[in-house]
Amino acid sequence: MSTAAPTPRTFDAMWADLEPVGLVASGGYRRFAWTAEDHVLREWFAQEARRRGLDLTTDRVGNQWAWWWDGPGTVDEAVAAGRKGVVIGSHLDSVPDGGAFDGPLGVVSSFAVVDRLRALGVRPEVPLAVANFVDEEGARFGIACAGSRVLTGQLDRDRALGLADADGTTMAEALRAAGRDVDAYGPDPETLGRVGAFVELHVEQGRALVDLGAPVAVASDIWPHGRWRFDFPGEANHAGTTRLEDRRDAMLGYADLVLGARHVATRRGCVATVGKVLVEPGGVNAIPSRVTGWLDARGADEEEVVAMVEELTARGQEHGATVTRESWTPTTRFDRGLSERLRRVLDSDEEVSAPVLGTGAGHDAGILATAGVPSAMLFVRNPTGVSHSPEEHAERDDCHAGVEALAACVADLVGPAGATSQVTSDDAPREQA
Amino acid sequence: MSTAAPTPRTFDAMWADLEPVGLVASGGYRRFAWTAEDHVLREWFAQEARRRGLDLTTDRVGNQWAWWWDGPGTVDEAVAAGRKGVVIGSHLDSVPDGGAFDGPLGVVSSFAVVDRLRALGVRPEVPLAVANFVDEEGARFGIACAGSRVLTGQLDRDRALGLADADGTTMAEALRAAGRDVDAYGPDPETLGRVGAFVELHVEQGRALVDLGAPVAVASDIWPHGRWRFDFPGEANHAGTTRLEDRRDAMLGYADLVLGARHVATRRGCVATVGKVLVEPGGVNAIPSRVTGWLDARGADEEEVVAMVEELTARGQEHGATVTRESWTPTTRFDRGLSERLRRVLDSDEEVSAPVLGTGAGHDAGILATAGVPSAMLFVRNPTGVSHSPEEHAERDDCHAGVEALAACVADLVGPAGATSQVTSDDAPREQA
Repeated sequence: MSTAAPTPRTFDAMWADLEPVGLVASGGYRRFAWTAEDHVLREWFAQEARRRGLDLTTDRVGNQWAWWWDGPGTVDEAVAAGRKGVVIGSHLDSVPDGGAFDGPLGVVSSFAVVDRLRALGVRPEVPLAVANFVDEEGARFGIACAGSRVLTGQLDRDRALGLADADGTTMAEALRAAGRDVDAYGPDPETLGRVGAFVELHVEQGRALVDLGAPVAVASDIWPHGRWRFDFPGEANHAGTTRLEDRRDAMLGYADLVLGARHVATRRGCVATVGKVLVEPGGVNAIPSRVTGWLDARGADEEEVVAMVEELTARGQEHGATVTRESWTPTTRFDRGLSERLRRVLDSDEEVSAPVLGTGAGHDAGILATAGVPSAMLFVRNPTGVSHSPEEHAERDDCHAGVEALAACVADLVGPAGATSQVTSDDAPREQA
Repeated sequence: MSTAAPTPRTFDAMWADLEPVGLVASGGYRRFAWTAEDHVLREWFAQEARRRGLDLTTDRVGNQWAWWWDGPGTVDEAVAAGRKGVVIGSHLDSVPDGGAFDGPLGVVSSFAVVDRLRALGVRPEVPLAVANFVDEEGARFGIACAGSRVLTGQLDRDRALGLADADGTTMAEALRAAGRDVDAYGPDPETLGRVGAFVELHVEQGRALVDLGAPVAVASDIWPHGRWRFDFPGEANHAGTTRLEDRRDAMLGYADLVLGARHVATRRGCVATVGKVLVEPGGVNAIPSRVTGWLDARGADEEEVVAMVEELTARGQEHGATVTRESWTPTTRFDRGLSERLRRVLDSDEEVSAPVLGTGAGHDAGILATAGVPSAMLFVRNPTGVSHSPEEHAERDDCHAGVEALAACVADLVGPAGATSQVTSDDAPREQA
């Protein structure tokens, strides 16, 4: 592995690099997997790895890994000798018109952590990597965390390759256009086997840290969450000449689903959202012959989420809807041993307290946890709690506090006390349904 | 004017020519203004004019007119001498995934009428034209009857030129790409001044003729109708992490509009449809920050339609919506003298009875009527009543009955009894609001 003299770059300089990439008129970002914007972001990642003398590898799916290991031997020899790696990082893609922080904050902070550890003279006893997971938001092909799901075998590679974007371009075609080897695309147990622990730093997507007055938290679990597609049937006809009693208007069932979702979610203490809809034929003067709406359902209590979706499914079926579950992830509990270790490290720091928070958002760390990789997350305060929007924000002081917190955790994990041997899960993650 | 020997073509042969143009997988048609499909249809029209030795003119807007006038003098000299023309025809464009009959039935029948009159030895005393009005459905640029509206000055030419399609292409750009002279685009009083009477034959867009057991009807009036855009504001945020009480979800107001529209329309005896919706940002896991829905409202009773839209506007405003009227056409009464004359002609034919029907659909004939041109319509039976859909249909026997009925009416209007002198309106059409 290379040990070229690093050229440290400040957090602020890296942040400034990324700011123009995929910026749109709304002030938000459109950074979708395997697009020109994504290519720029991946090149940026590779360049930051080179600047630090990190060894860049790309797995069969296209996730990027920048390894710091000064030996003895190679990363794989260290792994074979029981020294599995510690991995930090996140993703660089965005939702449509998303904010600047969701994803990039974790990647930029991770490179800053490498610089910080080197400045402190830390010499890792196990390999350390910064990771960039591809296609976390699923904005283009519809499945979130596609990069980590295929990596871990939780999303079938053939199903993933067949996913089509809004223009009808399949994932396979997009990969080919981006110069990827489609034949090699698929689960990558060899890469996964190098990961002894994964810690993902992420901007908080709520206001809990504002209320608690703390800049950084440790995650406890990811709420159960899923997506359901409701296809409402109708009959296309003229909006002016068709009597109300002769109509089969697919929009009516859809509207009832939207209002029902809010009503049932309120009653059951969950959250439910209908944020995407497609209408056929879609003319102002044509009665809809088909309306497809997507329900996003989550909550702290898995039984309530399941019961809510059952209620809404029955309600949709009364309107003739076909209901298809597109994804479902039960409660994901992060590794208790690892999370507790991070909390102890942060509590020993007078500057940083460490509340423990659950989250309603899915993350690559959750996918890795489900695959049996000891995983944990840190959240950085978001003054408005707004996320997936141009208003998403974190104050620069809190970003720097996040880097300090992550650096302290990593220093502990890669330090002489031994890293991955101590973070073996004591709480076997549940399988995805 | 040319009097070349006509090459009559059967209705069925012309119909077969058009069948493949713009056909899509749904079995419906996508024939939008100034597209490649539209070009093929316009070339077909020009060819049918040539086959019959008709004199093709294209007005400043792009509407096509195929004149039959054997003199004395030119069409304009005949008009100057008080012999204004009789015009028949309709349009060739379609809604998205529309049927084969809405529009083309009127144009094909009109060419067949020319052949029928010639076969009967009719020699018109006034000029007769077959017309093809461009962009009747408004499927591409959003305003129905754009061709006749600009022709008559009811749609401002600059506003029309600035309309953009879904890809951001403006009408001006589309015209230029189609080889049209954009500078000349605008109202065309000279062309309009040639029209002494306009009769549009159209497939019925309801089931009244099925219930009445008649193949053809004469139109009485076009219901008042309009389009309103409702822009619901919201705040983009994460669907998993934002508490229900912290949300501003634009989809909820939209869903309330959809259900409210059906409810109020039922109570007031009108029809109301929400057939098009746009969502921002449109991600499954993002709370909608903006939802735009279009309301199409019509009814036999103008006061009830106005009151319905006022109720729904107030309801939308309770959700913070901005409501914009995009179009509004009060009740359009067809010329009573002309319509009564058509009815008398058809009643004298033992084969064809002629009930009188109102309609909820807008038509170029309504635009011309509003502009003061004596106008009327014939409807041909539709066995399902379905329209703006691949299921739209007319039996071939009924199509032929339509040709016979229109031929009988035109023979009367262009005959020695004098045509346009007798059809001066006795019922001044109302101005468009």
